[in-house]
Amino acid sequence: MAAINSNFLKLKAGYLFPEIARRVKAYSEANPEKAARIIRCGIGDVTEPLPYAVVKAMHEAVDELSVRESFRGYGPEQGYEFLRQAIVDHQFTGLGISADEVFISDGSKCDAGNILDIFGKGNVIAITNPVYPVYVDTNVMAGNTGEADETGAYAGIVYLECNAANNFVADVPNQKVDIIYLCFPNNPTGAVATRPQLEAWVKYAKENDAIILFDAAYEAYIQDPAIPRSIFEIEGARDCAIEFRSFSKNGGFTGVRCGFIVIPKNLTGTADDGSRVSFHQLWGRRHSTKFNGASYPVQRGAAALFTDEGKAEVQALITHYMGNAKLLREAAAAAGLPVFGGENAPYVWVGCPAGLTSWDMFDKMLGEAQVVITPGSGFGSAGEGYFRISAFNSRANVEEVCRRLKVLVA
Amino acid sequence: MAAINSNFLKLKAGYLFPEIARRVKAYSEANPEKAARIIRCGIGDVTEPLPYAVVKAMHEAVDELSVRESFRGYGPEQGYEFLRQAIVDHQFTGLGISADEVFISDGSKCDAGNILDIFGKGNVIAITNPVYPVYVDTNVMAGNTGEADETGAYAGIVYLECNAANNFVADVPNQKVDIIYLCFPNNPTGAVATRPQLEAWVKYAKENDAIILFDAAYEAYIQDPAIPRSIFEIEGARDCAIEFRSFSKNGGFTGVRCGFIVIPKNLTGTADDGSRVSFHQLWGRRHSTKFNGASYPVQRGAAALFTDEGKAEVQALITHYMGNAKLLREAAAAAGLPVFGGENAPYVWVGCPAGLTSWDMFDKMLGEAQVVITPGSGFGSAGEGYFRISAFNSRANVEEVCRRLKVLVA
Repeated sequence: MAAINSNFLKLKAGYLFPEIARRVKAYSEANPEKAARIIRCGIGDVTEPLPYAVVKAMHEAVDELSVRESFRGYGPEQGYEFLRQAIVDHQFTGLGISADEVFISDGSKCDAGNILDIFGKGNVIAITNPVYPVYVDTNVMAGNTGEADETGAYAGIVYLECNAANNFVADVPNQKVDIIYLCFPNNPTGAVATRPQLEAWVKYAKENDAIILFDAAYEAYIQDPAIPRSIFEIEGARDCAIEFRSFSKNGGFTGVRCGFIVIPKNLTGTADDGSRVSFHQLWGRRHSTKFNGASYPVQRGAAALFTDEGKAEVQALITHYMGNAKLLREAAAAAGLPVFGGENAPYVWVGCPAGLTSWDMFDKMLGEAQVVITPGSGFGSAGEGYFRISAFNSRANVEEVCRRLKVLVA
Repeated sequence: MAAINSNFLKLKAGYLFPEIARRVKAYSEANPEKAARIIRCGIGDVTEPLPYAVVKAMHEAVDELSVRESFRGYGPEQGYEFLRQAIVDHQFTGLGISADEVFISDGSKCDAGNILDIFGKGNVIAITNPVYPVYVDTNVMAGNTGEADETGAYAGIVYLECNAANNFVADVPNQKVDIIYLCFPNNPTGAVATRPQLEAWVKYAKENDAIILFDAAYEAYIQDPAIPRSIFEIEGARDCAIEFRSFSKNGGFTGVRCGFIVIPKNLTGTADDGSRVSFHQLWGRRHSTKFNGASYPVQRGAAALFTDEGKAEVQALITHYMGNAKLLREAAAAAGLPVFGGENAPYVWVGCPAGLTSWDMFDKMLGEAQVVITPGSGFGSAGEGYFRISAFNSRANVEEVCRRLKVLVA
């Protein structure tokens, strides 16, 4: 009798984005005449084409593989040095991170889920609320939680509430936890953490021998030079943090697939026998046993983002999406709705009109305006009463969304 | 205090292939004048360029991504239907497998490791010996074993010994197990299972409510039309088997990265509460939560393998590598060594000269002939006294390896 992982049965409903896709599909089938009018600002998916530098590099890499003399098979599981070194040189300048502390993967969602492989049982996990659902769901699957209550909160997780009062940046908990998920710029709220706020987190983690899993997938959207882009800008973070990064949102790689994590070599956790073990070594073993390197043409494409041409094209993409965010912020504010985020992040976080839940607003926006947003409650109970609008779209679509929002809420 | 996964500490030494790489690097540094002479037949990595059909399809896909109108971001987590349908049409013709039973991934190594996420604790795991190390190591990491003994065998695993007496095809065990790893054509021994042998396995699995994890990564190398290419050719396998496939060894995708698994919708396991749960649903949840789809240009490349042009090119690659295997078999036999495999698989499995262990032979081949082979004992204790030669090489290199083998062993 083969036993299944019964922890999966604790998971509530579907993963958020498949559920959104299901509702959009059902609406489109029931209202075929309006299907073409639908504008998707739901899933945080980029819309603009790949930078030309990436296209060129990927073509060249494919051509390399087409000739015996330059063909490459298995690459290093950790990723090619040309990419790891470029990352360190351009994204971690002066932060003391070395290329062999970088592990390339096929995307941040995989890394954020798989990282739990190297952690033991019994860790107390702190997760913000609202939050990117992957952090919660993967802990449920790994057996790090009990059952969910009627609000969707899982027993055993320490939820750190983010709300308008704390500007959607959680305070350090007043209890001891072992693993902390932080995401800045935040998905879904678009909040960013100031240097003093991150310093408080690093101080807390060091004092409690805790590990911060710092998701910086949206760092390219930070406009304010005072906001740290990496947790490793904070002194002491090398002793308590792992950082997750992605090429999805800066280089438009959501369909191309590439991300990476940074694990300082000196970072350790505690084994059952009390010995201290390097997370870098553990992840290296995990990565070389359960992963076979990211696609070579993809890694070449990612490295091209760090050329002068690539950097200029990324900057143009960021400027475009942040211009969208500004329009969406203004439109939601003009409609009299409370607005957060969208200044250092591609997500605008908006309070629902009075009396509407997040899914009410989702259904209203879809049914009356044919605009797909993401219901805030899909990110956790503290997201109830909010919705997320993604700035990932063409300018024309964003302008149309702004017009429809005005009509809808007015 | 963040606890690490202490199961990792049970793992013996390094993963096999990094250890080989380490020894080759050390030898090259100590003997720079001989480094250029090294021929690698160790890791099972293809050497011939990507099929032109793949190159063309990947270029077209990259160009699609370079234009707003045809740009695609996140794809379906399960993989694009164009690829899933092509797989079913061309590789599972008439076997009753539907496209939605196929899950595309970035490679078979990931799938083979990650599959354990959906299984519970307490399953009795049966693994052949010798075996592809990933099956064992991932079970150790997942906590499905105890400690290793002095032979490298982990407590709790039921090892199914493969040897010259059973022609390296394990018999069904005489005890009850819950999960069985089978790989045919076999890595490392090159053995294939006959239809009656696979029928016996399916019968055993059904009688014991066990799941067969069937790794068919090398199916393209089967020359004998009587040998099944898929476990689903066996009646009843839909009730007890999951199949793993890869584009690495037929399409030369070791550096491009794409594979897939087939999970029949009716396949179930048992939850803690005794209910039966669909593995297809569990994997769908796992895949959509911890994976974000394989790279779009890669999926287009994989689909091109099923065009007429692509199929002809794959056939040419298989013919090439199998021609190598024939030469290697003949050379090893001429040197008086016992030879297995290499007739329906790209691996030739050879007995070491009398008195030499597998690693002795590895060091001798490297030091005296500058040929990298894979020590049989790296695949488990029953591999001791054997070594694996990979047929993945150019014809010129294989001919040179044959010459050196003759000199070395004579």
